[in-house]
Amino acid sequence: MSDAPSLQVADDDLALLTDLYQLTMLQAYWKEGLGARATFSLYFRKLPDSRRFMLACGQQHAADVASRLRFRAHHLEQLAKAGPFEDAFLDWLGEWRFSGDIWALPEGTPVFPNQPLMEVDAPIAEAQLLESLIMNLVQLETLLASKAVRLVLAADGRPVVDFGMRRMHGVDAAVRGVRAYRSAGLAGTSNVLGGLRHDLPLRGTMAHSYILAHDSEREAFRAFLRHYPGTTLLVDTYDTLDGVRDLIALLDAEPELRLGAIRLDSGDLGALAKASRRLLDDAGHTQVKIVASSGLDEHQIAALVAEAAPIDVFGVGTQLGVSADAPVIDLSYKLVEYAGTPRAKRAPGKLNLPGRKQVYRRYDDAGQLAGDTLALRDETPPPGMPLLAPLVERGCLDARQMALAEQAPQRVAETLPRLPISLSRLENGESGYPLTLAPELARLAERYRH
Amino acid sequence: MSDAPSLQVADDDLALLTDLYQLTMLQAYWKEGLGARATFSLYFRKLPDSRRFMLACGQQHAADVASRLRFRAHHLEQLAKAGPFEDAFLDWLGEWRFSGDIWALPEGTPVFPNQPLMEVDAPIAEAQLLESLIMNLVQLETLLASKAVRLVLAADGRPVVDFGMRRMHGVDAAVRGVRAYRSAGLAGTSNVLGGLRHDLPLRGTMAHSYILAHDSEREAFRAFLRHYPGTTLLVDTYDTLDGVRDLIALLDAEPELRLGAIRLDSGDLGALAKASRRLLDDAGHTQVKIVASSGLDEHQIAALVAEAAPIDVFGVGTQLGVSADAPVIDLSYKLVEYAGTPRAKRAPGKLNLPGRKQVYRRYDDAGQLAGDTLALRDETPPPGMPLLAPLVERGCLDARQMALAEQAPQRVAETLPRLPISLSRLENGESGYPLTLAPELARLAERYRH
Repeated sequence: MSDAPSLQVADDDLALLTDLYQLTMLQAYWKEGLGARATFSLYFRKLPDSRRFMLACGQQHAADVASRLRFRAHHLEQLAKAGPFEDAFLDWLGEWRFSGDIWALPEGTPVFPNQPLMEVDAPIAEAQLLESLIMNLVQLETLLASKAVRLVLAADGRPVVDFGMRRMHGVDAAVRGVRAYRSAGLAGTSNVLGGLRHDLPLRGTMAHSYILAHDSEREAFRAFLRHYPGTTLLVDTYDTLDGVRDLIALLDAEPELRLGAIRLDSGDLGALAKASRRLLDDAGHTQVKIVASSGLDEHQIAALVAEAAPIDVFGVGTQLGVSADAPVIDLSYKLVEYAGTPRAKRAPGKLNLPGRKQVYRRYDDAGQLAGDTLALRDETPPPGMPLLAPLVERGCLDARQMALAEQAPQRVAETLPRLPISLSRLENGESGYPLTLAPELARLAERYRH
Repeated sequence: MSDAPSLQVADDDLALLTDLYQLTMLQAYWKEGLGARATFSLYFRKLPDSRRFMLACGQQHAADVASRLRFRAHHLEQLAKAGPFEDAFLDWLGEWRFSGDIWALPEGTPVFPNQPLMEVDAPIAEAQLLESLIMNLVQLETLLASKAVRLVLAADGRPVVDFGMRRMHGVDAAVRGVRAYRSAGLAGTSNVLGGLRHDLPLRGTMAHSYILAHDSEREAFRAFLRHYPGTTLLVDTYDTLDGVRDLIALLDAEPELRLGAIRLDSGDLGALAKASRRLLDDAGHTQVKIVASSGLDEHQIAALVAEAAPIDVFGVGTQLGVSADAPVIDLSYKLVEYAGTPRAKRAPGKLNLPGRKQVYRRYDDAGQLAGDTLALRDETPPPGMPLLAPLVERGCLDARQMALAEQAPQRVAETLPRLPISLSRLENGESGYPLTLAPELARLAERYRH
């Protein structure tokens, strides 16, 4: 594909993925010599109605991108034409490397309103420059992991597999989304590139078109079983239970064929799973599994689990791939300190907490999450475990923290049993999860309140 | 960024962006010698509740990708490890090029349920292989263009500018989204890479953090005006109207400063725009424009236009960037013909129209869209203008059709005044837009109905 214009965004071009005002502000700071250190905090003010917590994800990727960001000569040429940029500034930009620190929650940490997912400490221009890109990168994975973990909770131990690549918003979402799914605990993905790149097992069945391309359903079943012993067959192209009966007849007639699972993709999945299970068991195919898909979300999965539908694997697509019930997080990236002084915009009715922060998490005697304290990073630590740690120091990735971030799937798997019911339940509603402010932060916040 | 693992998906890797079952089905067809031509049709069954039409976009990009798709040696190695693929098949895959035809609606065409956005005619395995990728690529642009055009309709001639890069789902969405916005008629974008790549003017103002980093709002205003004569200043960091008054005082005191516009980003935008306009006009600054942003959607824009709020430019972000009220289109990519015979899945309650199709669009005497006829591609043409045309023939892009696709912005601009009120109004509801089936298609569909 080398002779035609590039279709995808190269790593090298990510420096230009920003809002124009970041660059004009950057030049202004540069001209004014406003080089003092600033801290920007990435957080959200409120949860979507349909979420009781979010699962922070993508901070590691964002830190990785930030530490590698460079403006190349061709970028500078483009900027010279596109905006009010001076040559001396562009020369400086060409030499620029991110020199600051990035603190972040470990990936896979449940996060609540007003808690920083990340804090960027750097000369103000540098910290400002990262805003748009960091928000874009972190939102995607946090959104998708936060949706995916609800499916995992709903399935109550049964594997959940991603079938949604085709519904996601473009290529980067589709590929990096799999990283978020892996963190959240999904068991597999149909997405080849995403699964290969982010180490989630590949899963696949067949499409209706394969059945339709054969002269009969039975002929399609036979052919696919011969190609792929132990495979999963889609049985609902014409009539689901007729399909199952026909398949059983085929297996009886040709006992060398080995079936792994059937997939139900339409109709009343609970009733069809029960009826299919009965047909399969009565014919002695007790080891054949049942995969169900078809517009599933966490509520439908929970209902199927509650009615004890004999479904072994849930395949999810549309509702997961765009986090359809909450497709956006209203993330903020706000200046909270400049030149050693806490800062905050004063906005009526909005809580803007100044200062660099740390989150301390407490657990009760049974090991359940019991509440958080939000504190200034430098005040006397309140009880609880501090959550934010530096991923980037003086522009360099911290290898140990980056390796810890890789453990998001284990972290989530350990965390889910520790969620109180008020956090793990799927219905809309307030969790009442306690978030208190430590004394110094509370005092400071009071001064910035209207 | 060359020594670290790639962060983005390279053009070359798009062949792997597919669902696993596409590749297992492909191998099955290859083994079975099922090489007859098939047609797959890309369409949606119903509109989202909040849409009266969709604007088809992204077909050109998808065709471009399809025509360039190649499996490289390292892909084949990965596939050999990842799935049940035979060496001979992988050798064949390494030689494979798309050899079929792709028909598509011109980008920027209003499209309705059951109308093909694209049809792929190719040996079945090839047409099947493209499914997941084409759906992913076309959905993104169609979703975003369909949302963006509603903002354009609501703004009734006032420019609408995209500020939403940070809210979009990852990098590809953010960059390719700008292509869709341009097609839909947006006037600019804050997104530097997206705007540069897809030729939409760059626009930018300033962030609250710039104000907060200065000792006073007035000092920040003065500094930014000196750097960027004629710029836009954000006036709501502390109190909007105090900010405007202070700015006027500054302009009076330092008449060499030149202000282009103010930006309102919170509060009651209509009331604040009126009050700000009055303050500016009374001080003689009648040429200063007003930009409004802050969670705007088409309904809020329409309300502001209806109350004659003196807003010159609307900036939109969150609601646009993920098409928040309709973040997914339930696109289908269905086998409609195989080996010269129409095919369709029979599903109770669902309309599955077999056969290769063409859409004929009629206009009334006043030039307004009057209705469409869906016909088999080869049946006697009904009245109206045929809309689908070949973008790819025998695997090669048709340069003339690809150039026509570039004219999407002009096409949309010409189309909007031709939409009847039942299509252009923003409220939810049925448009009643007439879609009829031509006789041959109707006869065929009858045979496939339950």
